[in-house]
Amino acid sequence: MNFKNIAIIGVGLIGSSFALSLKARGFSGRITGIGRNEDNLLRAEEMGIIDAHTTVHAEGVRNADLVLLASPVGRFEQIINDVRHELKAGAIVTDVGSVKAGVIRILEPLMPPGVNFVGGHPIAGKECSGIDAATADLFTGARCIITPSPRTDREALDTVVGMWEEIGSRTLLMNPEEHDLIFAAVSHLPHVVAYALVNTIIDVDGGILHHGGNGLRDMTRIALSPAELWRDICIYNREEILGILRKFSSYMSRIIKLMEETDWSGLEKEFARAKEARRSIEPDQHKK
Amino acid sequence: MNFKNIAIIGVGLIGSSFALSLKARGFSGRITGIGRNEDNLLRAEEMGIIDAHTTVHAEGVRNADLVLLASPVGRFEQIINDVRHELKAGAIVTDVGSVKAGVIRILEPLMPPGVNFVGGHPIAGKECSGIDAATADLFTGARCIITPSPRTDREALDTVVGMWEEIGSRTLLMNPEEHDLIFAAVSHLPHVVAYALVNTIIDVDGGILHHGGNGLRDMTRIALSPAELWRDICIYNREEILGILRKFSSYMSRIIKLMEETDWSGLEKEFARAKEARRSIEPDQHKK
Repeated sequence: MNFKNIAIIGVGLIGSSFALSLKARGFSGRITGIGRNEDNLLRAEEMGIIDAHTTVHAEGVRNADLVLLASPVGRFEQIINDVRHELKAGAIVTDVGSVKAGVIRILEPLMPPGVNFVGGHPIAGKECSGIDAATADLFTGARCIITPSPRTDREALDTVVGMWEEIGSRTLLMNPEEHDLIFAAVSHLPHVVAYALVNTIIDVDGGILHHGGNGLRDMTRIALSPAELWRDICIYNREEILGILRKFSSYMSRIIKLMEETDWSGLEKEFARAKEARRSIEPDQHKK
Repeated sequence: MNFKNIAIIGVGLIGSSFALSLKARGFSGRITGIGRNEDNLLRAEEMGIIDAHTTVHAEGVRNADLVLLASPVGRFEQIINDVRHELKAGAIVTDVGSVKAGVIRILEPLMPPGVNFVGGHPIAGKECSGIDAATADLFTGARCIITPSPRTDREALDTVVGMWEEIGSRTLLMNPEEHDLIFAAVSHLPHVVAYALVNTIIDVDGGILHHGGNGLRDMTRIALSPAELWRDICIYNREEILGILRKFSSYMSRIIKLMEETDWSGLEKEFARAKEARRSIEPDQHKK
């Protein structure tokens, strides 16, 4: 790692785990945690996750060689507007947001001369948030999508790729628009559906949720994710998410129609092809 | 346990785990496994899960004090028609089906004089099926819903309740119709949605499913459940499942509308109330 000073804006699960991952690999530079909640930053510093902290964003980034944006996506623009004049020439700004095209479109033009932005998305969330859930191996073996745009500096790109690989991630380059289309389907849709499942059930009767078994708990675990974070993702990836939500709704109508028409073999076929596809991504297939 | 001979029809995950649970608690009687797949039954016998086996259902139940129906719900009627004349007086027939009202309506009138049916539903599935996934503690601490009808014999009811408690389940009596309404929401809906999520995603592009993270894997794990089983549940609980699917669809339309109208605070409120409700059923809440 060639960085001496790293600033992490947003010291939550991802930001903290990033810091712990660096330290676990012997990073000897200084990590400054930046955020709005001083108590949280103080705790992170006491726990040795970060070396210094500040709630004044512009101050925190002043000497940073690398700035990692790890707050909810919707705050990125304001943050960069607040800190851009303090970013030093040669610094790299990167992020961990679940949406890429919209973020890149907004942030790239805000970078001062000599500062490069590279968009990234580590596929390593969990439903718990905050520094207590952070671990040094959250990114180990996990994929991290890096989304260069036509304006991305190649050297900065290589540096960011190298950084994620150094902490154990398997990086993958992807076009930002392709990223947003794919993740609308495989991540954003499931999150919205998890919230929708819980609300549908409690709207029937608030007391019945506890009757659910492990299946329901597994299916709705990601409904524990922060509401603000997912609101922001819906804002920034609105078109793609609306597109996949409409497809999902049409598909649900098709299932309802099969049941209305008592087309049981049609219904079984739909279930069977889903099962088959789901098996293909199951790591431990021998018992299924 | 006062039974000497137990017949388990359907030696899969639930049937095998039931047998293993009995044996782990010192059951000294004889357990006969009955099914259509002789290889599976032979293996179960070799593994010590069952003591004897047959593919001739009527033969298998002849001396049974207890008959446990653990095959997909849609086969129950045919099975009982095949074996009813061999059931001995005083025998109890019970089941583990995820649907209760329809099963009870069909099976109760088929019971010969002196044979009592008691409906049951252990909340203890997992996404893996078959004897290799079976364990002696699948039901330990798990709920088991017992659904007496107006025709249910009280002594047989007590016996079935006692049996599930003896193998570690926490039993709960519930009206069959209430059961079917609740489980349409907390179990059947999530299963159908899991299948629907997978199919929606692969209908966009068959190759993108592997991009999903743990969230998607958790959410679609129950899509690994046998298609025939869930087709049968949809057949037997058609009205309740259609009702909750329609509610879920309306709710999805509401979410789509919020996004179309860019009502982001409305959307965040929906996500937040789902998160709050989901937290209430999280056993380990301190980190959330």
